[in-house]
Amino acid sequence: MKQNDAPRLIALDWGTSSCRVYLLGEGGRIIETRSEPWGILQVAERARAHSTSLEAQFEETLNELCGAWMNAYSWLPVVACGMVGSQQGWVQADYRPTPADLAVPTNTLATVALTNGGSIHIIPGVIDDSALPDVMRGEETQILGALELQRGSDNEDVSAGQWMVLPGTHSKWVKVKGSTIQEFSTSMTGETYNLLMQYSILAKLAETPLEASWDAFDRGLATAFSTEGRRGIMATAFSARTLVLTGHLRATEISDYLSGLMIGDEILSVSQSWEGEQPQRITICGNENLSPRYRRGLKRLGIEEIVELRNTAPAGIWKIAESVGLLANKNTTEAEAHLRLSHSSERKVTS
Amino acid sequence: MKQNDAPRLIALDWGTSSCRVYLLGEGGRIIETRSEPWGILQVAERARAHSTSLEAQFEETLNELCGAWMNAYSWLPVVACGMVGSQQGWVQADYRPTPADLAVPTNTLATVALTNGGSIHIIPGVIDDSALPDVMRGEETQILGALELQRGSDNEDVSAGQWMVLPGTHSKWVKVKGSTIQEFSTSMTGETYNLLMQYSILAKLAETPLEASWDAFDRGLATAFSTEGRRGIMATAFSARTLVLTGHLRATEISDYLSGLMIGDEILSVSQSWEGEQPQRITICGNENLSPRYRRGLKRLGIEEIVELRNTAPAGIWKIAESVGLLANKNTTEAEAHLRLSHSSERKVTS
Repeated sequence: MKQNDAPRLIALDWGTSSCRVYLLGEGGRIIETRSEPWGILQVAERARAHSTSLEAQFEETLNELCGAWMNAYSWLPVVACGMVGSQQGWVQADYRPTPADLAVPTNTLATVALTNGGSIHIIPGVIDDSALPDVMRGEETQILGALELQRGSDNEDVSAGQWMVLPGTHSKWVKVKGSTIQEFSTSMTGETYNLLMQYSILAKLAETPLEASWDAFDRGLATAFSTEGRRGIMATAFSARTLVLTGHLRATEISDYLSGLMIGDEILSVSQSWEGEQPQRITICGNENLSPRYRRGLKRLGIEEIVELRNTAPAGIWKIAESVGLLANKNTTEAEAHLRLSHSSERKVTS
Repeated sequence: MKQNDAPRLIALDWGTSSCRVYLLGEGGRIIETRSEPWGILQVAERARAHSTSLEAQFEETLNELCGAWMNAYSWLPVVACGMVGSQQGWVQADYRPTPADLAVPTNTLATVALTNGGSIHIIPGVIDDSALPDVMRGEETQILGALELQRGSDNEDVSAGQWMVLPGTHSKWVKVKGSTIQEFSTSMTGETYNLLMQYSILAKLAETPLEASWDAFDRGLATAFSTEGRRGIMATAFSARTLVLTGHLRATEISDYLSGLMIGDEILSVSQSWEGEQPQRITICGNENLSPRYRRGLKRLGIEEIVELRNTAPAGIWKIAESVGLLANKNTTEAEAHLRLSHSSERKVTS
């Protein structure tokens, strides 16, 4: 194994309903990766089912996810971002307040000692403590990763500021200037969509399509942007039922039609808060299912430049691990790294 | 028993998740009533659980609901409104198209023969077949009942037209002129609220309050009507979590705060479609839980006159039974009434 191929970091993007682990080499290069539907909700369920403590269940799950790597490369730091650091997670990490310069590690990571003698470090979230406060956990790391990837690209000048959208269960709309998160807000579109498709009266008629229907999706978008769409998503959603009852929509099109209605409504609603100052450029950090949907919606809004980035969390975790000194020495042992981190916690700022 | 005390009609308001039955005397006076959580969804569940046919299960449920009345007064007509006449119900009743004059029985009732020799008649719904079609089943009967009650009141002149809102699982906003439904739309606010409070991330933090918090409700309303509210309900809903995380809202206040947010958003969204022509007067036909909430929201919108009516379905069912000739003769037997109805079906108009 050449020096450049040597593993340097074990990184985890540990969210509400899934966890993705990465074995990273120099510069954050992905050597190996694995994804499991073992989010913090599933861990909590397992703990209840097995009558174990939540802490023990998190450690067991961590071992299942990447115990082999932790054994083979016991000196590697283990760093996680996401809801694993929330009140419902393993240990509660801090929030950094906006404006939050992601390039400056003003806040400490939360550290949990493992029974094998090692430890896992959890990245703090960000809080926008305005009239309607808002929080993120994990997205700040994806954003930092996106900024790293943009910096690496020649034709990107985003120092003046940009909007990013991170679609998901709870999509985040984030205003970023340089490496600083200035403001953001959360839409519960994804979670509500899933609930409506699973439990509501719309679910009773819906049939699973063989493949996504872009026609149905675009029709939903068009409705959201029409005069009828101004009545809001709670009113237009019912048309996913009535159009089928009247023979104007197929039962297999309900899911994509509703997706178009809801993403269109989200984009239009968020654009209200721009008060006429619509951004020319928006970056989408999302997966291959949601990103093209948001692209179509943003295009309809008239956004000129839409950039899609995927899987930006590992670059963000790498950058943070580096900035807090966990990667300072290529021969760093976990014990040394931990020592260095404890030292940095003296600079801790309470959010 | 005096002639005036004699039962004349068995009426059912049979919806998605509950059924209310009435034994009605002359003029629709309520002699006895009973309500059970045996809506069409529960009937379908029972049919699956007992491996019986849906039809048999509906008849069994009908007998449980009012078999005693049907035995004691076997000559009484049995008339139902609501989702029992939908595709997921007992038998599919027609839809009357808008503009639908509720005083004119242009459409036939759907009739199901019962194994005891009697029958049940189901009132057709109404369809607004515009660009985004909309349907109602049951509300048309509540509206007719409301008009009857208004006609009985001296100081009501609503012939010029009025808006009615019928809050519920799927709330209906209906423009009525005289006895004619001109247009309407449905908001899935109630169902979505229930799903969010039962399954979403908000449910994880929420604690059941001992009693409704009007402060929390009004705070939700105020937010919906604020600048932040323009971001839409999918964005503001998340604040029911973040306000608790930041210590600005109690966990027991989440349910009422979200209720205020969602009802406020619904009212504001619907008012968009009025395009500046805001009605001076709105009638609310709802239950004692929801009606005061909609009243508070409408007041904040600046509606001058808000009228609340409760339990208007029986008056509507009485009026319809009368208009199709089911009550023509005080000594009417079920067989004669059925004959008369079959005759009226020759005038059937397909919607």
